[in-house]
Amino acid sequence: MEILGVEIQKEEDENIILGQAHFIKTVEDLYEAIAQSSPGIRFGLAFNEASGPCLVRHDGNDPELRRKAADNLERIGAGHAFLIIMRDAFPINCLNSVKQVPEVCSVFAATANPLTVLVADHGEGRGIIGVIDGKRPAGREGKTDIETRHAFLRKIGYKR
Amino acid sequence: MEILGVEIQKEEDENIILGQAHFIKTVEDLYEAIAQSSPGIRFGLAFNEASGPCLVRHDGNDPELRRKAADNLERIGAGHAFLIIMRDAFPINCLNSVKQVPEVCSVFAATANPLTVLVADHGEGRGIIGVIDGKRPAGREGKTDIETRHAFLRKIGYKR
Amino acid sequence: MEILGVEIQKEEDENIILGQAHFIKTVEDLYEAIAQSSPGIRFGLAFNEASGPCLVRHDGNDPELRRKAADNLERIGAGHAFLIIMRDAFPINCLNSVKQVPEVCSVFAATANPLTVLVADHGEGRGIIGVIDGKRPAGREGKTDIETRHAFLRKIGYKR
Amino acid sequence: MEILGVEIQKEEDENIILGQAHFIKTVEDLYEAIAQSSPGIRFGLAFNEASGPCLVRHDGNDPELRRKAADNLERIGAGHAFLIIMRDAFPINCLNSVKQVPEVCSVFAATANPLTVLVADHGEGRGIIGVIDGKRPAGREGKTDIETRHAFLRKIGYKR
Amino acid sequence: MEILGVEIQKEEDENIILGQAHFIKTVEDLYEAIAQSSPGIRFGLAFNEASGPCLVRHDGNDPELRRKAADNLERIGAGHAFLIIMRDAFPINCLNSVKQVPEVCSVFAATANPLTVLVADHGEGRGIIGVIDGKRPAGREGKTDIETRHAFLRKIGYKR
Amino acid sequence: MEILGVEIQKEEDENIILGQAHFIKTVEDLYEAIAQSSPGIRFGLAFNEASGPCLVRHDGNDPELRRKAADNLERIGAGHAFLIIMRDAFPINCLNSVKQVPEVCSVFAATANPLTVLVADHGEGRGIIGVIDGKRPAGREGKTDIETRHAFLRKIGYKR
Repeated sequence: MEILGVEIQKEEDENIILGQAHFIKTVEDLYEAIAQSSPGIRFGLAFNEASGPCLVRHDGNDPELRRKAADNLERIGAGHAFLIIMRDAFPINCLNSVKQVPEVCSVFAATANPLTVLVADHGEGRGIIGVIDGKRPAGREGKTDIETRHAFLRKIGYKR
Repeated sequence: MEILGVEIQKEEDENIILGQAHFIKTVEDLYEAIAQSSPGIRFGLAFNEASGPCLVRHDGNDPELRRKAADNLERIGAGHAFLIIMRDAFPINCLNSVKQVPEVCSVFAATANPLTVLVADHGEGRGIIGVIDGKRPAGREGKTDIETRHAFLRKIGYKR
Repeated sequence: MEILGVEIQKEEDENIILGQAHFIKTVEDLYEAIAQSSPGIRFGLAFNEASGPCLVRHDGNDPELRRKAADNLERIGAGHAFLIIMRDAFPINCLNSVKQVPEVCSVFAATANPLTVLVADHGEGRGIIGVIDGKRPAGREGKTDIETRHAFLRKIGYKR
Repeated sequence: MEILGVEIQKEEDENIILGQAHFIKTVEDLYEAIAQSSPGIRFGLAFNEASGPCLVRHDGNDPELRRKAADNLERIGAGHAFLIIMRDAFPINCLNSVKQVPEVCSVFAATANPLTVLVADHGEGRGIIGVIDGKRPAGREGKTDIETRHAFLRKIGYKR
Repeated sequence: MEILGVEIQKEEDENIILGQAHFIKTVEDLYEAIAQSSPGIRFGLAFNEASGPCLVRHDGNDPELRRKAADNLERIGAGHAFLIIMRDAFPINCLNSVKQVPEVCSVFAATANPLTVLVADHGEGRGIIGVIDGKRPAGREGKTDIETRHAFLRKIGYKR
Repeated sequence: MEILGVEIQKEEDENIILGQAHFIKTVEDLYEAIAQSSPGIRFGLAFNEASGPCLVRHDGNDPELRRKAADNLERIGAGHAFLIIMRDAFPINCLNSVKQVPEVCSVFAATANPLTVLVADHGEGRGIIGVIDGKRPAGREGKTDIETRHAFLRKIGYKR
């Protein structure tokens, strides 16, 4: 069995959500969960059907992001995995809705960072075993860093 | 450390849910979550206790499925993993209930496909690192495939 | 790519929750979710920022547990991972609240057992691929074991 | 302002769920939440649109239950109320899914009992202010009643 | 039809949760949801069965609170209503768990305030139509009040 | 006891969410739930403290909507009620997040319609007993109406 590292190809300001689901209804249910999460969101998504015709199923409200989600997920090649790529909104706006989609098992990552997807391949099929999301820590936050973090979250209006 | 591929042994029309939890109360709470999810469901489940007596705990309303869940989970051998095998109902009928069980950490897979569970073994213990769920993609869906998928989901009465 | 086993360093009676999230708001949102979960809980938590300054962010209501969470998570080194260490309460008291935090992707483990975290390292970054939580099964529960489990869960007042 | 008591007309073995929602998408989202909750469920549902054409919107997989849901909800006449009538399944199989539908505000009742819906009418519009669900208590359970309840829940396989 | 005001009789430092559910399994499921919400919680709860024997069902881990919950709920007399009374913990520690219990329809109030429950009575049955929870507003918060509120929530450790 | 009808004063294109909660932390938790629900949302909210100073607590990211929420909620005067008024987003974008706020008991209405809030007053305090949301039904949808509804939900991109 081989372990591969597959890089997600996306623009720096695009966010992704990568997870595991089941059943082709995932495509429509994820579409609806994301489309209704915020008025201006643009997104594409893909899901790897893992039996029968075994097609990369895809949807979205932006053709370019839809193509990009399918391209990346096809390179990953893991059965029942899904990938969402979004613009003009953030994972925090829709991640809880994604987690509650009835076909969704779990979410590996939600990020705008460079992402390496770790994939196990045994010939017939593939499975995601983890992700390397951005860079490893360069140190621990000190008193000033904590104040900066605290102030930043209030400045962007996300915390009181 | 060794990585093993453990095949789930089940009939083609049986669905499984594989996940990570904690505490032996998982067994009763999963039982109740699944038993009340739909009137006709038949199922067995198992949970790997990972301290003290370290027993494969099991329950279910069908003795054969209960035995099968315990057999498969014992071969996986990962601490705090759980496995549900069901008939006459589908993961979509109960997956959200399983995700909300207070002991459940995450779900690795929900599937009727052949499933290879990737297990790391360091001698004393084992852990699931991922799953290979069915086959890898054979292509991308085109316009006709999308129409077929759309029509199929309406024919089975799951989407409007 | 290298696979490392990182041992969580904690006291026997301390419980941990290890998961994947995103965005530094995770630190404050996890703090609030846990602080309000039960009146007497003492805890520390840490989150690995994975872009920009890449700091181990941390919080908690117990300085020693806070330091310990940051120490362990820094040794793990996986981007966007989080670790909670608690006393005087249990994961079952707060795990559903943690799963509903809007930045949380998934939870790898909730446990008081010795825990080996399996980490993939590709130089620039690291990712958690799984956990080995306690020991592997030593057998399957029989009729008496089931009665003992059933009675124990009633004795501690968790099941009726 | 007048307070009316509207009786739900249904067979004894039919269960209903009555709630408050908003937006005509409620009709399709409730349909899908219930259709996927258990394999054999038969149901009808209705939703009172409260602006524009102000139509009683309706759906279901059983024409008779669909008509009956619309009939009852039209007599209630409260804006943005919804009513589900089901057979071959129970509210416990789908109530959590209904509560999570993104348009649903709250649920007034889930019951097979005779139900009187209390409706306030100010001429142009109506609103549900409460329900009288079955009969008032005839006494308090004693030791034997508790044992009977406990045994019954285990006999039907819902509790362990 | 008569509208009654029923006062909840409780100590000043006891908190209550009042809601609507269905099915006698509510008693055991609420018990378990609350018992596992925090280590030190003491509570009693009651549920008004509304068909068959029509008994006030009750449970709890504190005999005095259990009796008090049944007393109050019997005076309310509304079918399928439930009442929880707690000490040594707060509604915020368990309200989300209560809302997710599969039999629970909705929650009317969570409070330590004096509470008047508004009950409609049509002879055979009763229904809760609302609650008067504490006192009506005496004014609007100004700049200093906001600062006091903000500081208080940080002092008790619930917000950052 | 008197029953009053209080009209919500708002612009036609503003949406409101009206509910019941407890504890002044509601103000900050609702603020954060709504602020993070979609990037462009503008909103104000208010909460009626019902003990101690009994102030109308308020927050928001738009001063005009904040004032308007407090004005309306003060006229309602019900203890522990909350009111959110929003622009540039819709209840469907944030209602599930509001329902999951740990202090929230229930939601009476989510609407852009004219709304009459039914309030019971017993002198010292007030309680919401229901809402009249928009107009009562003018008829039942026929085949063409169903097609129009179905097409409309696809045209706005909310359903597939």
